[in-house]
Amino acid sequence: MAEATAPVGTGGTPAVVLLSGGLDSATVLACARAQGFICHALSVHYGQRHGAELDAARQVAQALGAVRHEIIQLDLARFGGSALTDTALQVPTAGEQDGIPITYVPARNTVLLALALSWAEALGARDVFYGANAVDYSGYPDCRPEFVAAFETLANLATKAGVEGGHIRVHAPIIQLSKAQIIREGLRLGVDFSQTVSCYQADDQGRACGRCDSCRIRAAGFAEARVPDPTRYQPSNRLA
Amino acid sequence: MAEATAPVGTGGTPAVVLLSGGLDSATVLACARAQGFICHALSVHYGQRHGAELDAARQVAQALGAVRHEIIQLDLARFGGSALTDTALQVPTAGEQDGIPITYVPARNTVLLALALSWAEALGARDVFYGANAVDYSGYPDCRPEFVAAFETLANLATKAGVEGGHIRVHAPIIQLSKAQIIREGLRLGVDFSQTVSCYQADDQGRACGRCDSCRIRAAGFAEARVPDPTRYQPSNRLA
Repeated sequence: MAEATAPVGTGGTPAVVLLSGGLDSATVLACARAQGFICHALSVHYGQRHGAELDAARQVAQALGAVRHEIIQLDLARFGGSALTDTALQVPTAGEQDGIPITYVPARNTVLLALALSWAEALGARDVFYGANAVDYSGYPDCRPEFVAAFETLANLATKAGVEGGHIRVHAPIIQLSKAQIIREGLRLGVDFSQTVSCYQADDQGRACGRCDSCRIRAAGFAEARVPDPTRYQPSNRLA
Repeated sequence: MAEATAPVGTGGTPAVVLLSGGLDSATVLACARAQGFICHALSVHYGQRHGAELDAARQVAQALGAVRHEIIQLDLARFGGSALTDTALQVPTAGEQDGIPITYVPARNTVLLALALSWAEALGARDVFYGANAVDYSGYPDCRPEFVAAFETLANLATKAGVEGGHIRVHAPIIQLSKAQIIREGLRLGVDFSQTVSCYQADDQGRACGRCDSCRIRAAGFAEARVPDPTRYQPSNRLA
């Protein structure tokens, strides 16, 4: 996690920003840009059910001025174990349950951060931005502050940059914010949320199901923030 | 790193073993098998210069009884920054130099361990085997014991298994051994080193250049262990 003493990036400092195409990481990209970083956006096609998220990531990267956007192919679906990558498992639509949800992809965020670290080191960047947030906190282990802190420790042991004295920082600027606060911050920084897709099972036009956990959390966030929700829903689910 | 209190795996306990096709990871696979683990071997085609290493990994996985061998495609070469993935950079052949060598792939081992962790969690395995070793210690930051320990800490924060109380162990059984000791241990456990490829720029038949750092370290290891070296060299480099 970014330390209190970490310098704010100024014009010319490169950073790698993990960008999923969802609401949270779009806001994080806007935060990184607002701090003056030259943003290199990284998306990973890891076998998630739909490509709409990646189409959204492309639009968001361009709209928010990323100098480069890489989409890396990585077939995590071969390992199985998640409703997000295994079409034999059903995405739950009955509301949030106790425990870690079946949409958890085993160690996914560790893999994503490792890839971001690899690109950052190759670029000579020392800053990685990661869109973990407090709403996901209770469900996903790899969205907790202690996970982010442990990854930053690892990053500084793992890399040439870390060993040779340059401190690598993992920024998680929205980790303590509620969904409504993230939405307000994103709007303040110019994010166009109509470009983002949060749904776990969006159709190929990026239209949301309106029923999965991610849709529910997103809709509640817009309601709480008291701003218009630009989410596009699948016609059959509009009344759900 | 495996703790002293970690139970030795007995028949039926699954483990994920990172397998590169080189000498070290082949020995690690043999160690894991000797400890009774049901071994799932994981190789990653990350953009390294040649495919001979992966052919070697296939042979080794089969010879040492891995129940499954997955080769994951991952294009780290797009990030650049290493002589192992960027053909515009030359693999050094002048002997070992001070500092971190240009053959270092940015954060590669962090990425490989993250992938192994993902598969382990999907399988319900709590043991990951990693072939870092002492010979690489001085050059590569992600082969040091403190890196392995930090990754194990991270793994237990990152995963459902870790959060729900099962301890994940990252075993690095050869980390403190010299190359000669690794070779002797591998031979004791039945590794056929003629199947392994260590060279950074082997030809498509898996024949070694005899001049890169990896070839030099390997040849010195066989000499020190006083056992025949089964390495196949490219004819043009036999006298180098």
